[in-house]
Amino acid sequence: MRNIKLILEYDGTNYHGWQSQAGTGRPTIQDTLELAIRKITGEESKTYSSGRTDSGVHALGHVANFTTSSTIPSEAWAPALNHVLPKDIRVQSSEEVSTDFHSRFSAEGKIYQYRILNRRSPSALYRNYAWHVAMPLNPRNMRAAAACLLGEHDFSSFRSSSCTAKTPVRTLKSLTITKKVEFVEVLLEADAFLMHMARNIVGTLVDVGLGRYRPAEVKQMLTACDRKKGGRTAPSCGLYLIKVLYH
Amino acid sequence: MRNIKLILEYDGTNYHGWQSQAGTGRPTIQDTLELAIRKITGEESKTYSSGRTDSGVHALGHVANFTTSSTIPSEAWAPALNHVLPKDIRVQSSEEVSTDFHSRFSAEGKIYQYRILNRRSPSALYRNYAWHVAMPLNPRNMRAAAACLLGEHDFSSFRSSSCTAKTPVRTLKSLTITKKVEFVEVLLEADAFLMHMARNIVGTLVDVGLGRYRPAEVKQMLTACDRKKGGRTAPSCGLYLIKVLYH
Repeated sequence: MRNIKLILEYDGTNYHGWQSQAGTGRPTIQDTLELAIRKITGEESKTYSSGRTDSGVHALGHVANFTTSSTIPSEAWAPALNHVLPKDIRVQSSEEVSTDFHSRFSAEGKIYQYRILNRRSPSALYRNYAWHVAMPLNPRNMRAAAACLLGEHDFSSFRSSSCTAKTPVRTLKSLTITKKVEFVEVLLEADAFLMHMARNIVGTLVDVGLGRYRPAEVKQMLTACDRKKGGRTAPSCGLYLIKVLYH
Repeated sequence: MRNIKLILEYDGTNYHGWQSQAGTGRPTIQDTLELAIRKITGEESKTYSSGRTDSGVHALGHVANFTTSSTIPSEAWAPALNHVLPKDIRVQSSEEVSTDFHSRFSAEGKIYQYRILNRRSPSALYRNYAWHVAMPLNPRNMRAAAACLLGEHDFSSFRSSSCTAKTPVRTLKSLTITKKVEFVEVLLEADAFLMHMARNIVGTLVDVGLGRYRPAEVKQMLTACDRKKGGRTAPSCGLYLIKVLYH
C-alpha cells in the first residue's frame, strides 16, 4: 500500500467543516474527498487530516493523506482528483510519502490567517471571506494584547468548552496584526491549536481593538485558565488554514 | 420627485449581469435592486445605471440612480436597501443628487480592474473571482503591448460584434499591469468602454504575456479596426467595475 499526501485549498462556505458527519446528509470536505478517491480507484479509502476545521472555515494548505493500492503515479493524483472534485475544493499537490507519515500526528505546527474587513459599509464580495467589523479597530492596542499571548501557556480561556484535547497547553509562536487598507489581518502560528482557539483569540483581540478590553485584561483572561473569562468567538468565515508545518 | 444616487458593490457570480432580462426568469442586478426599492416604497421605480455589466462581472463601485416620491432620508436608503437585498449585493452609500444627474450620461469615465491568478495550480477560493492562467505571464511584454493602446483610438478590434455604440472611438487614459505575488492585476481607465472592450484588451494582453503575440502585433490589431483581427475575450469572472467618475 502507498501513502499519498495531498495539499488542499478549499472554500469552506458550503461545507460543514472537514470532518465526516456520515448519516447527517451534511456535506463535509472529508466525505467529498473520500468519494472523489473512490470514484478514481473503486476502493474505500479513509483520509487522515492535519485537523478538523469548523463549518465555513477556508483552507489554502490543508493536508490530508490516505493509503491506496492504486498504481496511479503520485503526482497524477492532484489533476485526477480535481477532475472529479467540486470546484470549491482543489488539490494543490500530491506526493507519495513514507508509510509512517500521518497528516495530524506528524505535524509540528500550523499557520492560520484571519481576515477582518474593517470599514463602515458591509461587503458583497467578502461576505463569506472576512469578518465585517464596522467600527474602527486600533491595531496598536491589538498588538499590545497579542504580546501577552505569545509563548507556551495554558490556553483554557481560549478553548471551546467542547474541546477534547488532553492538555490545554500550547505554544503560540507568532501572532501578528497587519493593517492593509480596509483589512486587518491576523496571522497565528502555534505548535497546535485547541478547538476554536484561533477564533477565540481573534474575537478577543477585536474587542481590544474596539476598546472593550484593555490589553492588560487579556493577560488576566489567559492566567484565569477559564473559558468563561475569555472573549468572544470570531465568526468562522474569516479564518484560513494557511499551512501545516512538518519536519 | 427626488433623485437618489446609489453606489453598489456586488458579487456578479449568481447574476446575468446588470441589465433587466424581464420575462426570462434570469436574475439580474437591476431586477433585484428594483424589487428591493419596491419592497420599501410600494412604488415601481426604474433604475438608471452607469452601464451594463456582463454576466459574472463584479463591482465595487457600480452607480445607479432612481427617482422616488418617498420621503425616506437620502442617507437611509443604503441601510434600508441592504435590509431587503440579498447579501451578494450591498449598497455602499446613498445620496440625493440634482434631478439632471443620470448615472450613465453624467459619467466622465470608468475604472475597471481585472484579476489574473497566475500560478500552476487552480484555486478553490478564487474560482469565481479571477481568471486562472496556469502558464507564466511576462508582465514586461504585457506592459509594452499596453503602451500601444493608450490614448484616443478607434477600438473596433476590441469591441464585441454585438456592440451598438454609435462610435468605436474611446480614450484609454491608463492601462497598468501589476504583479502581486501570484496575481497579475490589470487596471483600465477610459472615458467609456465599448461592449467587452475591457475583457478583449485583457484577453489580448494575456496572449502577449504568454508569448503568443509580440507587443508590436497589438499595435497592428488596433490599427486594423476589425474585431476579427483582435485577440480573445478574457472570462467575465476576473473583471471588477471599481469606480465611475463624475465631475
